[in-house]
Amino acid sequence: MVIDFRLRPPFGGFLKVGMYADKAAADFYSRNIGMKRSASAREESMRLLLKEMDENGIDMGVATGRIGHRKGNVPNAEIVRLLEEYPGRFMGFAGLDAGDVNGSIEEIERYCVDGPLKGVVLEPGAMEKPMYADDGRLYPIYAACEKAGIPVQIMIGGRAGPDRSYSHPKIISRLAADFPGVNFIVAHGCWPFVQEILGVCFYQENIYLCPDLYFFNLPGQDDYIRAGNYYLQDRFLFASAYPFTPLSCVHEFRESFKPEVRDKLLYKNAAKLLGLD
Amino acid sequence: MVIDFRLRPPFGGFLKVGMYADKAAADFYSRNIGMKRSASAREESMRLLLKEMDENGIDMGVATGRIGHRKGNVPNAEIVRLLEEYPGRFMGFAGLDAGDVNGSIEEIERYCVDGPLKGVVLEPGAMEKPMYADDGRLYPIYAACEKAGIPVQIMIGGRAGPDRSYSHPKIISRLAADFPGVNFIVAHGCWPFVQEILGVCFYQENIYLCPDLYFFNLPGQDDYIRAGNYYLQDRFLFASAYPFTPLSCVHEFRESFKPEVRDKLLYKNAAKLLGLD
Amino acid sequence: MVIDFRLRPPFGGFLKVGMYADKAAADFYSRNIGMKRSASAREESMRLLLKEMDENGIDMGVATGRIGHRKGNVPNAEIVRLLEEYPGRFMGFAGLDAGDVNGSIEEIERYCVDGPLKGVVLEPGAMEKPMYADDGRLYPIYAACEKAGIPVQIMIGGRAGPDRSYSHPKIISRLAADFPGVNFIVAHGCWPFVQEILGVCFYQENIYLCPDLYFFNLPGQDDYIRAGNYYLQDRFLFASAYPFTPLSCVHEFRESFKPEVRDKLLYKNAAKLLGLD
Repeated sequence: MVIDFRLRPPFGGFLKVGMYADKAAADFYSRNIGMKRSASAREESMRLLLKEMDENGIDMGVATGRIGHRKGNVPNAEIVRLLEEYPGRFMGFAGLDAGDVNGSIEEIERYCVDGPLKGVVLEPGAMEKPMYADDGRLYPIYAACEKAGIPVQIMIGGRAGPDRSYSHPKIISRLAADFPGVNFIVAHGCWPFVQEILGVCFYQENIYLCPDLYFFNLPGQDDYIRAGNYYLQDRFLFASAYPFTPLSCVHEFRESFKPEVRDKLLYKNAAKLLGLD
Repeated sequence: MVIDFRLRPPFGGFLKVGMYADKAAADFYSRNIGMKRSASAREESMRLLLKEMDENGIDMGVATGRIGHRKGNVPNAEIVRLLEEYPGRFMGFAGLDAGDVNGSIEEIERYCVDGPLKGVVLEPGAMEKPMYADDGRLYPIYAACEKAGIPVQIMIGGRAGPDRSYSHPKIISRLAADFPGVNFIVAHGCWPFVQEILGVCFYQENIYLCPDLYFFNLPGQDDYIRAGNYYLQDRFLFASAYPFTPLSCVHEFRESFKPEVRDKLLYKNAAKLLGLD
Repeated sequence: MVIDFRLRPPFGGFLKVGMYADKAAADFYSRNIGMKRSASAREESMRLLLKEMDENGIDMGVATGRIGHRKGNVPNAEIVRLLEEYPGRFMGFAGLDAGDVNGSIEEIERYCVDGPLKGVVLEPGAMEKPMYADDGRLYPIYAACEKAGIPVQIMIGGRAGPDRSYSHPKIISRLAADFPGVNFIVAHGCWPFVQEILGVCFYQENIYLCPDLYFFNLPGQDDYIRAGNYYLQDRFLFASAYPFTPLSCVHEFRESFKPEVRDKLLYKNAAKLLGLD
């Protein structure tokens, strides 16, 4: 069993945001890691995507909403619709507008507590008005997640904000210390601060790492692998960041790790966060 | 010949501090680097430890006192007793209470100048009231060590203090610049700031690196190895951090390096610091 | 075809500055990366150097002037003379005195706009009065280079200044953002901040990386290689930093990378910066 923890299908609002609408940007990422976007991504075909998922042994993908993002939105209602149209193939996280605390708390209530979504996603550095993820104004959101018992995915790493400071491990270190009851998932894995985030994760056990595309063919890969093989084997996640990579990247990911930890990295850790175990 | 530069035997006060008394903490470290504590550690048996030393070709271990540590103390008098009871198998460093400058200078006098201990150990971030190792209040201690001509081991790296800032390479860089006459030994090797500490060591030649358990199966290992194989071959030290690792880790350490530098890393560099050469 | 982007021949003023005059310093660098200076460097022989270039397949070397440097100067007029005496074997960059903005602008005019030199070199941290490369007082120099359309090489990394802060990637990140029309070449590759500078280069496409001697047998090498094999393949440069290394290091460099990118790293990227393509 394989769960891809970052898979944005060619469906609904996804087709209008940068990852599909801006071909140059999409190719930038693919090319930089030595890959090519797959047919389903280029043709924007759900049918082909499901075929590629089957061919590559990916049982389920986690799709995430987006609100208030400077590159366009994917409403959470569409994530729910995705789950309904393709039962058993997707799980969803609710996107939150970091600039709207009250609205975010309402979305948590509607989509996670009363609805089918399994957690929330914040990309505070990518909002119209960029914020750091450890900005105190966001703390009521994290408190609501702690109360609801849901995991929080935050984009920290890569182009997480206007400059590299938005990618720094000290942000998640502070959050994880201030909300010990929340499981945090770091999308983009604080890349390129690889040695430093891996130091943070050694001790702070409510941090999960999901480098997604920043795992492949990039500096720091050896360090990520060593952590995934040893102390981070229960908190490291596979994600393709599709449509930026072809789903066949799962094979490179699998082969990078010791056989005895692969099932944890590809399925069990994700399943635990999603309440599937 | 092999000297293990961090070996805390199941003897006297050691048995009362965290590394033996807190089994969960001890297992946390072993498990995180993919190892199991050895029989001597689990059974707290000096007889078995000496057998394991023999079996793994470890001639001598450096044991260190602890005073003022938030996890309990190992008086320097007990280190002296260890040396007397097991002649030729151990060397000792005097633990100092970073919060007590005058007392520390007295311990240096008593145990290093007039006694058999070969240097001192400071763990300022682990004191009841944590301090940074480059805190000016500690400078009289370093000055006394410079005057006495003894090496100073400082814990910088890993869980060296309340947060990661206590592990940062700038601390030892500043100290080594301010006390050019002192040879500093960095226990825990500033992990996870591996690339950065190795940059510091390239130029500051009175710094010795002893990553001890943070060498094994962790991010940064390739960088440590490349330094040990080349420019740091005269200032890199083997240490097991026993009881957290089995002494058989010496074989993994040895095999990681080029044959022509192994004798330096496993013996000669340590012997030089201990005045054995 | 191979261009060595940092090759300082035993010619004119070079023989009076540290890299030749201070044998101990020269040996320090060679020894630290496990190499020996070559016969031409030890005998200070141009004839032998040209022979070694031929033997190792190095067609052309980039030599750089130095003015205001705390270890002595190599006037730009001598770089011009080198180009004239050995036609086709060298290209030149004009050294600038970071402490003299007006004089620097005159040198740019004389040697780059009206003369044969292809760019400028700044080593602000190595001046008699060290400056950071992103010091606002230097901005008129960068503006003049932008206007002249010439690349700017800056030493950031290694012993770039009185302490490691002069080697930090944030310096070049800021400059590259403030002067998007300038191609910057980072001599010494911000070593040891390898993961961090490689993160900067992922997004800021007017930065070229030239780790030169800090590529060889040092921590971070695997990360440099992964970037050069993938996203940095169009902006990574070979340089020996001769006389500190023998030119045979080119073979180790070549073998480190995928066959399909070698021509870019060894020739094409340099040729583009030098206007040879």
